[in-house]
Amino acid sequence: MGCNCAYIAQKLEETGIEIARHSCIGSDPAAAVNILTEMGQRSDIAVVAGGLGPNDGNHTAVAAARAAGVDLILDPQAVASAENFVKARNRTLTDSIKKQAMLPTGSQCLNNPVGTTPGFHIKLGQCDFFFLPGALFEMRQMLTEQVIPRIMKLLGPAVGVRQVNTLCTFGLAESATSYYLDEFDQLFPRVKLSFRTKFPEIHLKLYARGDDEREMRAQMEAATRWIHRKLGDKVISDTGESTEKVVGDLLRQKKANLALAESCTGGLIADLLTNVPGSSDYFVFSAVTYSNELKMKILDVNARTLNRYGAVSEQTAKEMAQGVQRVSSATYGLSVSGIAGPGGATADKPVGTVCIGVADAKSVHGYRFNFNFPNRWMNKHIFATTALDLLRRELLGIRR
Amino acid sequence: MGCNCAYIAQKLEETGIEIARHSCIGSDPAAAVNILTEMGQRSDIAVVAGGLGPNDGNHTAVAAARAAGVDLILDPQAVASAENFVKARNRTLTDSIKKQAMLPTGSQCLNNPVGTTPGFHIKLGQCDFFFLPGALFEMRQMLTEQVIPRIMKLLGPAVGVRQVNTLCTFGLAESATSYYLDEFDQLFPRVKLSFRTKFPEIHLKLYARGDDEREMRAQMEAATRWIHRKLGDKVISDTGESTEKVVGDLLRQKKANLALAESCTGGLIADLLTNVPGSSDYFVFSAVTYSNELKMKILDVNARTLNRYGAVSEQTAKEMAQGVQRVSSATYGLSVSGIAGPGGATADKPVGTVCIGVADAKSVHGYRFNFNFPNRWMNKHIFATTALDLLRRELLGIRR
Repeated sequence: MGCNCAYIAQKLEETGIEIARHSCIGSDPAAAVNILTEMGQRSDIAVVAGGLGPNDGNHTAVAAARAAGVDLILDPQAVASAENFVKARNRTLTDSIKKQAMLPTGSQCLNNPVGTTPGFHIKLGQCDFFFLPGALFEMRQMLTEQVIPRIMKLLGPAVGVRQVNTLCTFGLAESATSYYLDEFDQLFPRVKLSFRTKFPEIHLKLYARGDDEREMRAQMEAATRWIHRKLGDKVISDTGESTEKVVGDLLRQKKANLALAESCTGGLIADLLTNVPGSSDYFVFSAVTYSNELKMKILDVNARTLNRYGAVSEQTAKEMAQGVQRVSSATYGLSVSGIAGPGGATADKPVGTVCIGVADAKSVHGYRFNFNFPNRWMNKHIFATTALDLLRRELLGIRR
Repeated sequence: MGCNCAYIAQKLEETGIEIARHSCIGSDPAAAVNILTEMGQRSDIAVVAGGLGPNDGNHTAVAAARAAGVDLILDPQAVASAENFVKARNRTLTDSIKKQAMLPTGSQCLNNPVGTTPGFHIKLGQCDFFFLPGALFEMRQMLTEQVIPRIMKLLGPAVGVRQVNTLCTFGLAESATSYYLDEFDQLFPRVKLSFRTKFPEIHLKLYARGDDEREMRAQMEAATRWIHRKLGDKVISDTGESTEKVVGDLLRQKKANLALAESCTGGLIADLLTNVPGSSDYFVFSAVTYSNELKMKILDVNARTLNRYGAVSEQTAKEMAQGVQRVSSATYGLSVSGIAGPGGATADKPVGTVCIGVADAKSVHGYRFNFNFPNRWMNKHIFATTALDLLRRELLGIRR
């Protein structure tokens, strides 16, 4: 039942292919055959994900074979590919893995480099179908490696020249971003602007297509510059790169490194930073200190500060940032202390309150924000990205 | 273009409603009207998500109005709901927010408690349509609060009695899990079993429907017991609860608490644990120590151990676990040191190698694994859940 159509549509659009329609197929076999037949009459190219894999009992291959009016046969290439995969893992070929290598007669096997389930390419009616397993990582890799090159070849020059550009922004709600960019369509009729929320970032996708590459590139550059003028320092990157990636690159450029003192974000900032390959160049330490005792013991926060102002205060955040900078000898110390909810709120510190400290060896700044999001997950993420953005501003010399 | 159909289908199935088919609608307005009209002839109930919201320009409302042959009018309930939302946030009603309150004449507004975009309910042809905004959190909350109760009312007793149960498992590949449960359909013909991978966990969904509640419940219990016999200690929970939630509950039951020493998982274990509300009851500290210096300074790892065995070794992992237990005075110390890739591999320690330590005040155990996943994200997640599972086994007295 998993549906990957948003991902597939995005990937295809990035290569300049526009999607006319997506359908998802339920679990009823007869209905699946009908839908595939209908799609074969209506479309030129279709990508189908799911219904293939060890637990999907080969449903889609059976339906495709029925729609094509052919039988399933054991595909030698599919067997070899699965065999390679399991051998490399010291496992053996089971019957259920072999069953997956039964493909419709006349189809072409699409190798799966990261699993045992092959995909296949077959023509039904007028339409070229690409069938992929539903498992996310397998589907994604096969889409990029196996399917898109074949589609580009099928389409040939019909695709035209196209360019896609993504701007990552942070700090404005979607409605505010939309308000600032209201005139975009009027000013840049040949560039399509769309919004993708990767909470808490908002990614702006610019998409242009045409025959004259130079003119298109000029339009794209003008549109990008205009967005910069409108959104200012809310633009994190012109390349779709995330806040944590941009902060990491800035640290590397400055030959600086970073230590974190996290409380309510619970390790999320460290996790985000270390999801970026190569982050060991600049990330040295995070102390996730939930208790006051450990804030004192590890970060050297003053007991009086905790008593007088509380753990969620600019004063404590500043001492946490300074403490973690000192203990790790990092260039920068960044700290977060707040209330992610649902518990922990007090009268003057509601859920969504967060205090952040940014320190280097010489100075420290404290900040306080009140956010208003409906759950813990969103609060942790807005706190984390706000802290990273404050460090980004520090690194770029942008003052709030 | 965002597609939420997997989520919607799952939620509806949990309430006993089976999905015949999903369609997703592209950006072409005329095509959208056609698809809605077609759906109105073919289905009884439809849920449409997306194409409503500040940046979607009300496309779906326009298409629905055209399919119904009516105009859009300003809906007073929709205006009031948006007004409440923005007032609570000290913001004002903008034109773009008001535009979203334009709903097809004759439709019924569906309140949005977490945003400014209302949904609406309208009959097109024979079909009851529920339109929702595409923004994930808004859509999810409205589906549960506004749509499902209305659908249950429309369906009345036709839904019958149903029961859904989810088992969370960890430690077997999907193909192996499927192999062990091969006879399920034969043994329990009235219970439907499906697999949902929440990497690295595999969730087994049991779904039963019938007229006799007692008999159905007995079937469900028998099926659950049978899966336990087949998968043994690979079953983490009978309730769909994640490994981190189960570990947290075990710690709370034992009045124990936990400190972490993370290296390659980069704060992910702390993040997973602290995503669970109430985790401050048992989670006290995580030291994310990327550098050897900080492993020595904060965790008191011996320089000789690091020199002789390296950072990625059972010996270092054991000292990290003991060190973090001591420094935090927690009941348990859990440590992870490994190579998540793409860099960092050596001849005898390939990407995917991970060492884990589990310590209490008296004893410590070290473990070493080699995983073979294709990327950093997957490695971090399999390392994190493996560590949590080892602690779970320790807490339950299960020996490997």
